[in-house]
Amino acid sequence: MFRYRRKAQYHETDQMGIIHHSNYVKWMEEARVAFLDQIGMGYKKAEAAGVVSPVAGISVEYKRPVRFDDEIEIRLTVSKYNGVVLELAYEFYNLTENVLCTKAVSRHGFLEDNRIVSLKKELPEMDGLMVSYIAGQDQNG
Amino acid sequence: MFRYRRKAQYHETDQMGIIHHSNYVKWMEEARVAFLDQIGMGYKKAEAAGVVSPVAGISVEYKRPVRFDDEIEIRLTVSKYNGVVLELAYEFYNLTENVLCTKAVSRHGFLEDNRIVSLKKELPEMDGLMVSYIAGQDQNG
Amino acid sequence: MFRYRRKAQYHETDQMGIIHHSNYVKWMEEARVAFLDQIGMGYKKAEAAGVVSPVAGISVEYKRPVRFDDEIEIRLTVSKYNGVVLELAYEFYNLTENVLCTKAVSRHGFLEDNRIVSLKKELPEMDGLMVSYIAGQDQNG
Amino acid sequence: MFRYRRKAQYHETDQMGIIHHSNYVKWMEEARVAFLDQIGMGYKKAEAAGVVSPVAGISVEYKRPVRFDDEIEIRLTVSKYNGVVLELAYEFYNLTENVLCTKAVSRHGFLEDNRIVSLKKELPEMDGLMVSYIAGQDQNG
Repeated sequence: MFRYRRKAQYHETDQMGIIHHSNYVKWMEEARVAFLDQIGMGYKKAEAAGVVSPVAGISVEYKRPVRFDDEIEIRLTVSKYNGVVLELAYEFYNLTENVLCTKAVSRHGFLEDNRIVSLKKELPEMDGLMVSYIAGQDQNG
Repeated sequence: MFRYRRKAQYHETDQMGIIHHSNYVKWMEEARVAFLDQIGMGYKKAEAAGVVSPVAGISVEYKRPVRFDDEIEIRLTVSKYNGVVLELAYEFYNLTENVLCTKAVSRHGFLEDNRIVSLKKELPEMDGLMVSYIAGQDQNG
Repeated sequence: MFRYRRKAQYHETDQMGIIHHSNYVKWMEEARVAFLDQIGMGYKKAEAAGVVSPVAGISVEYKRPVRFDDEIEIRLTVSKYNGVVLELAYEFYNLTENVLCTKAVSRHGFLEDNRIVSLKKELPEMDGLMVSYIAGQDQNG
Repeated sequence: MFRYRRKAQYHETDQMGIIHHSNYVKWMEEARVAFLDQIGMGYKKAEAAGVVSPVAGISVEYKRPVRFDDEIEIRLTVSKYNGVVLELAYEFYNLTENVLCTKAVSRHGFLEDNRIVSLKKELPEMDGLMVSYIAGQDQNG
């Protein structure tokens, strides 16, 4: 499991006095960028290899509101990977309130020159990094 | 079906040269606000009645990228309503490219003094507005 | 004078119950993009000519808050242009409250291949469009 | 001098491949919130005292672009304070590029029940915190 911490900012609040729900999608991206960087598949490396990984879909389930200045920890796991599709699961813990506040999922493909590619076939080194991360994740929980 | 039009703005692009995926969640809200206003359940009316309707969940499926200056039409329908839960479905058409680019769903509850309430029981007038909108929607497609 | 209208959106509010001050900078850009498009110097034309016009500076004076759903008209004038530097002035009128709410200025240069260029010398056609707009603006107020 | 560090995020880029200029206004706020918190005038304390401090004006001078993943340090100083008006100066250093990239200023008043108030008169304790911070700042540079 990869952990990413983030303070809820004032400019992210709305007039209900809570963090506006659109910001969670940005926080998911921040956690994902940090995660991919850590396992060696960071943006610059992928770009150098000519691969981009656009967001194919997201879903977010809002359980408890987050407020300005709350400390949030996002716990990210790889929920699916088959070389062509990557699915990530996110649990948002509000450390200030000590409560699970949000659950989310994102799905991603891989594109080279605007064509869908299989990491397994065309970038076996990156595929290997992901596969070995998942092996460790499944062992350590 | 309710239609909401919107130009994709420069400040909404990212360095992939497309509209950043988090913005679609804001556009869904803009369409929803305009829709609720049109059927007589607008924000100010709900607020005066002491009811807020927070977002309980969203899901977005990104099919085609949207680019700066593209004209987008969001087609909104009520996909579920039982007095307690409201679910809205959104289809994003890129009028500039003449293509369906995104599909999305949002789910909403109703709160009065931080308690979940049934519109049907506590605000029958608003419930009636929604029920009669849905009757018209199902007839006219 | 060029006029651009815009509704203040819910996702632009903050927990003080007003539009967050960072959004005005986005609205200035929206008005500027629409203005340059109208006088024939739109983004796609400039891009085709290989010219970008980054923001060199902004200043914003907030006089009155704007609230969700307020209708805002931005009145844009060219306050300075010498072929190398473009300065635009913005007055934000809150049509819902019938009051001038914000005044702002933005400054812009012109870049070709990352070098500062003079529109007057290198893109005389675009320079001519701006000069003739200003002539009309000064006559008509 | 107060220092605030921040990574430039992917969702803050635009299609020029740089951080969109509107985000700097949000980063200024983040630095300001952290600064006021550190000197004991944090948002929650001010709110408990019934005082809000809206932004009266900003100006930003963009010298060098910032790119995704760059590490930015904002150096904040109090440039003016007289009990009624607070002016803060910001220097943005791009630690990744080792260069001063942006300079900015923000101005703030103080409101109690929507009336402009003097901190010096009505909240002498908070005024004292600011005055003693400034004394230290002027000694230590």
